Amino acid sequence: MNPPAIQKLINLFSKFPTIGPRTASRFVFYLLKLPQKELNEFLNSIINLKKSIKICSFCFNPFESLGNSDETLCPICRNKSRNRTLLCIIEKEIDLISIEKTKKYKGLYFILGGTIDFKKNNKKIRTSSFNPELRIGELKKRIKNPESFGIKNANFKEIIIATNPTPEGEATTLLVERELNPLGVKITRLGRGLPTGGELEYADEETLESAFEGRK
Amino acid sequence: MNPPAIQKLINLFSKFPTIGPRTASRFVFYLLKLPQKELNEFLNSIINLKKSIKICSFCFNPFESLGNSDETLCPICRNKSRNRTLLCIIEKEIDLISIEKTKKYKGLYFILGGTIDFKKNNKKIRTSSFNPELRIGELKKRIKNPESFGIKNANFKEIIIATNPTPEGEATTLLVERELNPLGVKITRLGRGLPTGGELEYADEETLESAFEGRK
Amino acid sequence: MNPPAIQKLINLFSKFPTIGPRTASRFVFYLLKLPQKELNEFLNSIINLKKSIKICSFCFNPFESLGNSDETLCPICRNKSRNRTLLCIIEKEIDLISIEKTKKYKGLYFILGGTIDFKKNNKKIRTSSFNPELRIGELKKRIKNPESFGIKNANFKEIIIATNPTPEGEATTLLVERELNPLGVKITRLGRGLPTGGELEYADEETLESAFEGRK
Amino acid sequence: MNPPAIQKLINLFSKFPTIGPRTASRFVFYLLKLPQKELNEFLNSIINLKKSIKICSFCFNPFESLGNSDETLCPICRNKSRNRTLLCIIEKEIDLISIEKTKKYKGLYFILGGTIDFKKNNKKIRTSSFNPELRIGELKKRIKNPESFGIKNANFKEIIIATNPTPEGEATTLLVERELNPLGVKITRLGRGLPTGGELEYADEETLESAFEGRK
Repeated sequence: MNPPAIQKLINLFSKFPTIGPRTASRFVFYLLKLPQKELNEFLNSIINLKKSIKICSFCFNPFESLGNSDETLCPICRNKSRNRTLLCIIEKEIDLISIEKTKKYKGLYFILGGTIDFKKNNKKIRTSSFNPELRIGELKKRIKNPESFGIKNANFKEIIIATNPTPEGEATTLLVERELNPLGVKITRLGRGLPTGGELEYADEETLESAFEGRK
Repeated sequence: MNPPAIQKLINLFSKFPTIGPRTASRFVFYLLKLPQKELNEFLNSIINLKKSIKICSFCFNPFESLGNSDETLCPICRNKSRNRTLLCIIEKEIDLISIEKTKKYKGLYFILGGTIDFKKNNKKIRTSSFNPELRIGELKKRIKNPESFGIKNANFKEIIIATNPTPEGEATTLLVERELNPLGVKITRLGRGLPTGGELEYADEETLESAFEGRK
Repeated sequence: MNPPAIQKLINLFSKFPTIGPRTASRFVFYLLKLPQKELNEFLNSIINLKKSIKICSFCFNPFESLGNSDETLCPICRNKSRNRTLLCIIEKEIDLISIEKTKKYKGLYFILGGTIDFKKNNKKIRTSSFNPELRIGELKKRIKNPESFGIKNANFKEIIIATNPTPEGEATTLLVERELNPLGVKITRLGRGLPTGGELEYADEETLESAFEGRK
Repeated sequence: MNPPAIQKLINLFSKFPTIGPRTASRFVFYLLKLPQKELNEFLNSIINLKKSIKICSFCFNPFESLGNSDETLCPICRNKSRNRTLLCIIEKEIDLISIEKTKKYKGLYFILGGTIDFKKNNKKIRTSSFNPELRIGELKKRIKNPESFGIKNANFKEIIIATNPTPEGEATTLLVERELNPLGVKITRLGRGLPTGGELEYADEETLESAFEGRK
């Protein structure tokens, strides 16, 4: 029913995270109504995004490159006051922002790029068949030799696997642990328990068990 | 915390309908990860949207102009088998799609472009101060003289005001009625009542009253 | 895990409408903590309910019998200013309360006692196998001869079937219509359409179609 | 609008946890329709509840007294294989059921009877004005001298305060800690962190901080 030029863009917006065809079509009507000047601002912002944003050569965090176009490290990896004995492995960029907001973690990060994809992997965790976008190889190289990726004086003594406690995240933790174990570095996981505002009455057994084990 | 090029685009996506800053930032990370080829496809689709989509000179519905660049009417307005004695006034483009899906309405449309905005208007309905984007003047001209906007042999005998039964939509109906009354054309409104799956127990009094009045 | 006396009451509360085992167990702990005086008040209220509440001999609406223990009609059926040419058939008691709140309907009611139960009926509507709690036979007798049920000077000229526009309610309407047709009384249904606050964009096709058909 | 006998019971059901007037009225219509035999079963179950259920003299957990009417301890407190050096303080009965389901905690319990009530206490935590139903005095007596409440060979070495991590629960923890500190027993709290299925992206800062601190 929609003209092809509209339908094409609806299809592309439908691939955006959390967006279905109905919201996608509202986006298209929103863009159709947008004055040309604002539409250009939007288009230029997207073009500028790819131009001015680099991906950190160590942690894969996106950062603005500014004038100094030789910089390959993001501000966190560049910052010499960060603790270079701690490395926190996270699923995606936005998790880094959440952790930084707490202002409590002072080590470095590594963005894994996702989790094991159960649909593709038939629920078996095989190195050979896991989500090929996971940066497991890149992770091992960076732990073994951080200096060759631009991080001087780093010596990781603890690797914190901070994937989500979802089934996919847990499976990913198991895979990462298995891959990192031969390196002989201490590996930890985030503490599990009741979240702020949680209630014992509605907590699942695993969470409650973790809460008892982690009491202090 | 975000680099300015990222924050700028988060701000622009936050203006999209239904989108807040959190989803907006997910959009930006999605675009950052998108291969250059797919990003170009996305950008070209937006550029193409404005190029290939025209706004119908009669009803303001967007349509694809194809090769015949002189066409100013959308396929519905062009279609000689549509009933040119009926005109349905709707708030926005997507309402037209919903109504067309029923395949029961065979008249023409007019897209008003929104509703009265209570926040700006202090809940008073003054022609001089209502949402200036509402196409009230354009509507009156098209009802008086459809031929001068490309619709031949039209003679509107019923104007259906099909705004939403929300407070803003109801106020807009009152305004449109007041403006159209001097034209002497019959004006109707959509029937109110219980929707499919609705329950008397949870219906508001106004809906229930309409359901009783509209019984048949 | 629960003591039997507690589990028994949890099971009974779980049969209450909308209540699952978790809320049922909260009810039991609430009763366990209730002072004996308040518990007695609760028990007496339930015992008093059955004692002092009669079911109207005409419409099946519950009403308080007070001292005059011979009264068999509820206040609505007793009220001579109600319009005794109109009869509104509803699914359940609470629908009557919703309709009375509108203060627009002035006729009598008949409480059908439920709807066709698809699970039991294999989605076929047979008089012989429908929900035996539906008071179809009682309804027909009351329409034919209201005086023998205590309603004087009644002469029904319109029967409004006001079941919910849900699949079960619609099927019940079809059944009731088929049963009442031979009586030769005019039968109407509640008007369908957009409810207060509804939006065309999210309306189903049937509702939108009804809204167009019912325009005025 | 409802008869008084119905309205009275609606009011009493509206005091039940989680129940508002609308659901309360559905309960009353449910009871009105219930056959007398089933209504008697319901009433007898409530009467039987108070008769056959005792409150444990040590932990305040309700339990069935059966024939042995001298028993004053619940099955958990009676069970000699439970660890009598551990005492877990919980807000309410249902929390005990949740913890028992994990089958990991083997100590005793104490049901505090609620939390500090902010509305009544003007958000100040004063012993003199806190929720008088909190069994703080009873708790202290039981920790000092468990034997006088029927628990032999108990010697509490750790008190786990397992209130909910809600504002009310946290304030209650502070109060209980202050009251128990002079007893010189080790006091612990449940571990905080991400629950099963939780996501870093949506976790609050406090939960994330606890998850990092509690890593292992």
